[in-house]
Formats: sequence, structure tokens, C-alpha cells
Amino acid sequence: MTLTLSPDVQDAIAALRDQLCTLHAELTRYQLVIWTAGNVSARVPGSDLMVIKPSGVPYDSLTPGHMVVCDLDGRAVAGELSPSSDTAAHAYVYRHMPDVGGVVHTHSTYATAWAARGEPIPCVLTMIADEFGGDIPVGPFAVIGDDSIGRGIVATLARSNSPAVLMRNHGPFTVGGTARDAVKAAVMLEDVARTVHISRQLGAPLPIEAADIDRLHRRYQNAYGQTGGN
Amino acid sequence: MTLTLSPDVQDAIAALRDQLCTLHAELTRYQLVIWTAGNVSARVPGSDLMVIKPSGVPYDSLTPGHMVVCDLDGRAVAGELSPSSDTAAHAYVYRHMPDVGGVVHTHSTYATAWAARGEPIPCVLTMIADEFGGDIPVGPFAVIGDDSIGRGIVATLARSNSPAVLMRNHGPFTVGGTARDAVKAAVMLEDVARTVHISRQLGAPLPIEAADIDRLHRRYQNAYGQTGGN
Amino acid sequence: MTLTLSPDVQDAIAALRDQLCTLHAELTRYQLVIWTAGNVSARVPGSDLMVIKPSGVPYDSLTPGHMVVCDLDGRAVAGELSPSSDTAAHAYVYRHMPDVGGVVHTHSTYATAWAARGEPIPCVLTMIADEFGGDIPVGPFAVIGDDSIGRGIVATLARSNSPAVLMRNHGPFTVGGTARDAVKAAVMLEDVARTVHISRQLGAPLPIEAADIDRLHRRYQNAYGQTGGN
Amino acid sequence: MTLTLSPDVQDAIAALRDQLCTLHAELTRYQLVIWTAGNVSARVPGSDLMVIKPSGVPYDSLTPGHMVVCDLDGRAVAGELSPSSDTAAHAYVYRHMPDVGGVVHTHSTYATAWAARGEPIPCVLTMIADEFGGDIPVGPFAVIGDDSIGRGIVATLARSNSPAVLMRNHGPFTVGGTARDAVKAAVMLEDVARTVHISRQLGAPLPIEAADIDRLHRRYQNAYGQTGGN
Repeated sequence: MTLTLSPDVQDAIAALRDQLCTLHAELTRYQLVIWTAGNVSARVPGSDLMVIKPSGVPYDSLTPGHMVVCDLDGRAVAGELSPSSDTAAHAYVYRHMPDVGGVVHTHSTYATAWAARGEPIPCVLTMIADEFGGDIPVGPFAVIGDDSIGRGIVATLARSNSPAVLMRNHGPFTVGGTARDAVKAAVMLEDVARTVHISRQLGAPLPIEAADIDRLHRRYQNAYGQTGGN
Repeated sequence: MTLTLSPDVQDAIAALRDQLCTLHAELTRYQLVIWTAGNVSARVPGSDLMVIKPSGVPYDSLTPGHMVVCDLDGRAVAGELSPSSDTAAHAYVYRHMPDVGGVVHTHSTYATAWAARGEPIPCVLTMIADEFGGDIPVGPFAVIGDDSIGRGIVATLARSNSPAVLMRNHGPFTVGGTARDAVKAAVMLEDVARTVHISRQLGAPLPIEAADIDRLHRRYQNAYGQTGGN
Repeated sequence: MTLTLSPDVQDAIAALRDQLCTLHAELTRYQLVIWTAGNVSARVPGSDLMVIKPSGVPYDSLTPGHMVVCDLDGRAVAGELSPSSDTAAHAYVYRHMPDVGGVVHTHSTYATAWAARGEPIPCVLTMIADEFGGDIPVGPFAVIGDDSIGRGIVATLARSNSPAVLMRNHGPFTVGGTARDAVKAAVMLEDVARTVHISRQLGAPLPIEAADIDRLHRRYQNAYGQTGGN
Repeated sequence: MTLTLSPDVQDAIAALRDQLCTLHAELTRYQLVIWTAGNVSARVPGSDLMVIKPSGVPYDSLTPGHMVVCDLDGRAVAGELSPSSDTAAHAYVYRHMPDVGGVVHTHSTYATAWAARGEPIPCVLTMIADEFGGDIPVGPFAVIGDDSIGRGIVATLARSNSPAVLMRNHGPFTVGGTARDAVKAAVMLEDVARTVHISRQLGAPLPIEAADIDRLHRRYQNAYGQTGGN
């Protein structure tokens, strides 16, 4: 298959190939993934394309050239390797959530432990209010092979402030305006999943009132960082 | 805003910029922070100034030049970046605790887990007696945006030997004579928070008698290390 | 003892010596082993030989030349060091499981914790269905010194889809078509042992239906990665 | 104080200074210590001297020249720094256990968690049988400042096969024929303390029969490694 791409889109793809290498290294640094079990993708601005990790390639070996360019139905259009086996789910999210520019999937330990019980993570930390704006929701059980994982992600996120969903018996997916935002959400998700788990082991964490959660979420989404974003 | 600073104060600021880089690296080394979620500050001796981490900058990218100089009301007076969103709390501590030369804030996992339950860490280890002089106290729930976090820290520490306070549903703040002392307290806090948590999972840790706690605390504060301090 | 080996077998042995160095480094990277307590072996294709880690040598010091070539009764035939004290168990597996090309033994924390209770790891994660095809079984208690460990491994794996067995009060053994496959199974085993443990601490993980487990297992064994294998 | 030492003893001290640097790095590699809270010492063969870590020096900064030579009453006889605040306990062990050539003290998390409850670690893993020869015992509560810690260590170890003792509310001490053996025991202690803790969280680990424990211990002490020792 040959595709004619504008120079702008070609430049965007080249930049995203580099960026995805850096971002996969964040997944290993924060121990969110083992072996080859997790992936980051990015939408290519100004096109109906996405860039994603190849299937089954170890994180240490990943180079920008390994990344696979796919259309938004998940079909590879450039790159010599097969795309991640989770490509269909990423593609579904890009087709149905136009504001999403990046998607991350991991099986990070504590988030997956909540997902295995099908239990949302309650908003009992200011950090959860800041980043997730409330409880972190659970998505349905869905088996790889058709659109059911993608549908479950989109339907669950539509009912929530959260950029993260815990897919039942499977693991988390996170989204963001950019791939970096989605990775940040994946890192913070595992951190709060762990902290709330540990807190719950010896008793009940104290609740935070809904008005305080909203106040914290609004402030963090608007004022944090150097540029008003994250 | 332009500020005329004596050469001594200028030298002190330059030294603290370097030192804060080194100390933020201790936070990542001991895994007390993720992404950009934690900060160290230092009072500038001989002035009404403090130096603090900028907001939203990853730890790996931090350079001495990134650090932000603020007055003790938390307003930036030098540096191109915005100071940490926790600056008001640090500034409040320096205004009300004249012996404090350094402040650290993290969301370290085990300390935050105790904070989420609003439960003090009991003094059941000689290491807690040494460094914290008794139970490690919990501060009130307080939302960012005014002086309430700073007030909660100062009021709680005033009633305790401990250089650490667990702010409810939020995370720990630690203080010290220097920024390095405050970082040491943050590192030891997470260590004892984890050890006591794990001990409690399978039963009740044995208490240490109050007289022994006092004896250990006095000795450690006076005799440990190469110089009679820490 | 001198052995006349064909050039092909000599080349295969040289390649496996290198590969085993790389693979032992994966055991330390994923923290599956401490000190000298774990080992990887590989069958030498086209021969009745295996290559295995020497006994009591720290992972950091391991070189290709340290690896010990043994016959399939576990007797060293080349190499100056004594082979791993677990060599008899590895050799028994190669003698009785002709499709196995690699064996790994560790005492990785969470897998060994299940083994100490003699409790199989239930298949409550899609990752377990993918890689292990069902519950991960427990083998009998067996003391080193004769064939009883090897017999326990082989008898348990014969009744299961799983490439991993939890030897009671001892630790896990994993097998694979190659040594790398066996290491991958050891890494994934510890990951799922930890995740299911943590999930169980706060309630009951939800079951996955047997038909879904079979579907996931078939797909993963046939379609994942770049080449139809792993 | 000046001491006349034979060339052999001077050489032995120089070698031990180097070795203690390497061994303290094992404590940080296996995360048995934080900040400056743990220490290794070695007896100087052919003399009534020991070499030990200085007090309050961070592990990253340790050099051979920092190590402090003490007599077996714990008084520094060479070196510019003060010896570890635990020197009296190490010295007591060397005076009363002539076969001990190395002593290690840490506050490693899981071992200390058992120590806080005053509960021995039961011998439910073959690795515990191998290295510790039975349950790992608890020593008395003792406050630093006189011989009571040393007395508690020696009295507890005298009643056990174990090279490790869990000092109540404090942390573990381990001993060995050499400093390296004592470090190995400290590393294995934390590993089994963690594994048995985790196993116990979800039920009761299965016991190992006394005859099997003895058999494993005898074999491991006599046959493991390249030289018949460890």
C-alpha cells in the first residue's frame, strides 16, 4: 500500500516516531510494563492517521523507525512491522473521541488489581481530584478481536471526568490531548491505585467532599504548570 | 520586579540553586515522587527569601537555573518560571517557623496512605523514636489556594517533636534546619511509614515505652553523625 | 572427560553461552533473583546436551565462558565450574519433555508466596489466559538430591496448558520452546502472581469464563508478535 | 593513639577497607538501607581489631579511606571519622563469637516489620531451610548506649542455627564467617522475610517437616557453590 502524504504530515509523523520512543521509556522507568506488554500511540495532526508501537518488540530495542503508521481503522500504512495487537482499540478511540491525541495501554500492577475486582478507585486523595476529577471508572469485560474493547473504553470515559478507565480483568487505558498527557495519566493512575490500595489495607480512607473534588479538579486543569495546562 | 541583593545573599542563592538540584534527585532516587509531583525549598540565610522548584518541570530536566527565588509571601522575585503550586504553603512555614531552613513536600506512597485514613504513624520502631521523637502526626484537610495548608502544617508541628506531618487526604510535608535535613526526614518518613504498615498487616506491632522513646530521641539528636548533628 | 562435538554443535553451544548471559540479566532486571539464587538453561539443538549457569556465581560476574555444558543426566562435560545445584531438575525436564528448549528456575517473591501456601494462581486476568491458558498449577514438595523435583515439574506440567509450575514451599520453574520463551514465562509469571495477590487482598477477583480463556489463549499462542509466535 | 601493626595486619586492613566499600554497595543495591542507616564490619584476621563504616556518611560517598579501624571494645584506633553508632554491638559480637568474621546491621523493611511484632519468621521455604536452618529468631528490645544490644544478639544466636536475629522494634543483625557471608545472609533474610509475609497475607503457608529442614540445611552448608562453602 502506498500513501501520498503532505510534507507537514510527514514531518509530524517523524516527530511522533521520536516522541513515542521517549514515552515508551517512561513506561519502563515507572515500571508500568514488562517484556512487551504495553503500548503508546499518537494521532497524527491534520490527517486520519495514528502512530503506534509494533507488536512484540522489547522496549529496549525500540527505535523511531520501528513505529508503525496506521489509518484510523487500525490498518498499517507505513512501517515494516505489524502494529500492536491493541491497535484496533486505539483506533476506535481516535475515531470516536476527536479531542484525544494520545492513548496508552498498560497492565500496571495496582490499576490492574482494581480492574480484576471490577472496582472503581475512589477519589480519596487530592491527587485523584486534581488529575482524574472523581472516581476512576471500570469498563466492561471485552475480548480482543473486534471493536468491543474500544467501545468499552469510549462508553466508560464518556460518563466520567477521568482520562483513565480500568478495563475489567484486563488493565488500564488512558487518554490525553497529547501522547505525553496520556502517559502522565498512566503514571499517575498507577501511583494513586497503589496508594489507595495500601491505605485501604488497614482501614477506610476518609472521603473528600464533592465540592472540594470539583474545586481541585478545576484549578489543576487550568492553573498547574508553566503554561496553564499540564 | 527588580531586587537589589547583597553579594552574600547572591552567593547563598547560587549555592542553594545547586543544592536543590541534588536534593530533588534524592526524591527520585528513593521513589518519593513521580512525574512533577513533589518539591523541595530552602530559606536563603540573611534574607526574607526562599528558593523553590518551578511548577510542572520534570525532575530529569531540572537545572540550577530553573529554581525560582520567592519572597516569604510566595511571590517570585527571580527566575523565569512560575514557582511550584505549593509555594504558598512553603512560604507560610518559613514565616512562622524561624528555625526551619528547608521544607519538602511529596505524595510518597506509604506516608500518603496513612494520611488518606487520617491516622498517625505510631512510634513502634527505634528509628521513629530517633528521628521523629514519637508518633508522626496528621494535619487537617486543606485545599490549595490560600494559607490553610501552611496553617495546618505549622499548627500540627507545634504540638509534636516530629519534623513530619501527614496532611489528610493529601501527603506529607517535612521540615528541617536545612533543606537536606528536610529531605532526610522525608526519606526516613516513607521508610518507617512502609515498615509500620507492613508490620501491622499481620498483627499489632509491640509498643516502645515513652521513657525509651525520649532517651533514643535525645541521643540521636545530640550524638549521631560526625558533628553532633545529623 | 573429553567429548567430540560436530562444528554445528560447537557453534550452537557458543551461541547459547552468550544468550544465557543476556537472559540471566533479564532475571536481575525484573528482580526475579537475588545473590545467586536462580538459573536459566538451554538445550543444545542436535545433541543430548544442555548449557546451564554455574553454581554460586553472582549474576554481575557471569560471562559466556562460565556457563557449563552438561549431558542430559546433568553431568558436566565442558566448563571449569560446577553446574547449578538445580541441574538435575533441568536435565530431567529435557529428558522427558522433548519440545522444551529452555528451563528457568527462580524464587521470585510473589510466585513463591503462592507456592508456600500450595495454592494455584487463578486465571482472573486476560494476561494469564494469554500466556498460561488457565490456572497456574502447584507441584509437589520435593527435596533436592534426586529426581523428585524434575518428576514433580514434568507430572504437573503434563496436566496443564501452563509453561509454569509453582513447586510447593520452594519456587517456580518455567519452560519454553527456547530459553528466551522460558524467561518470558518467568517474567510474566511473577507479574501476574503479584497482580492477582494484590487484587485478592481487598476482595475476590472476578472470574473469566472458560470459553473466553480458551479463545484468548489460542489467539495469543498463534497471532501475537511479528512472526506468529512470541 | 598510635598503634604498631605488623605488615600482615596492615595489608589485611587495607583489603578490608576496599571490601567494605563493595559490600556497602550491595546493601544499597538490594535496598536494605536508606540514607546512612545500616553498616557492615569485618574482623581483622590475626589481630584484636575490626573495620567498620563511619557514622553518618552517605553510601554514595563512602571510600576505603573512610572506614574506621577499632579495637574489640569499639574504640577507634585509626581513621579520622567517628565509627558507626552501632560499633559497640558489632564489637561485642566479635568478642563473644570467635568464628564470626563479619557483622551486618540494617533496618530492611520486611525483616524489621517482623521485628516490630516480635515474631520469628517461620521456616516455610526451602531457601530458609538452606540458609537459616530453621525459624529466624527474635532478640530482645535493647536501647543503644551499653552492651545490651550485643548481649541480645549473642544470646539469641547461641540458641539457633540462624546467622540472623531480628532485634525487637529495631531491625536485623546478621553474622558470617566473612563480611561477605554476613551480607549474603542480610540479603537472603530480607528476601525470605518479604516472601513469607506476602504468603501469610492470604492464608497459612504450609509447614516443612523438621527432618527435611535439617537435610536441606546440611546439604546447603556443605555442598553449595564452587568450593563446598557458599
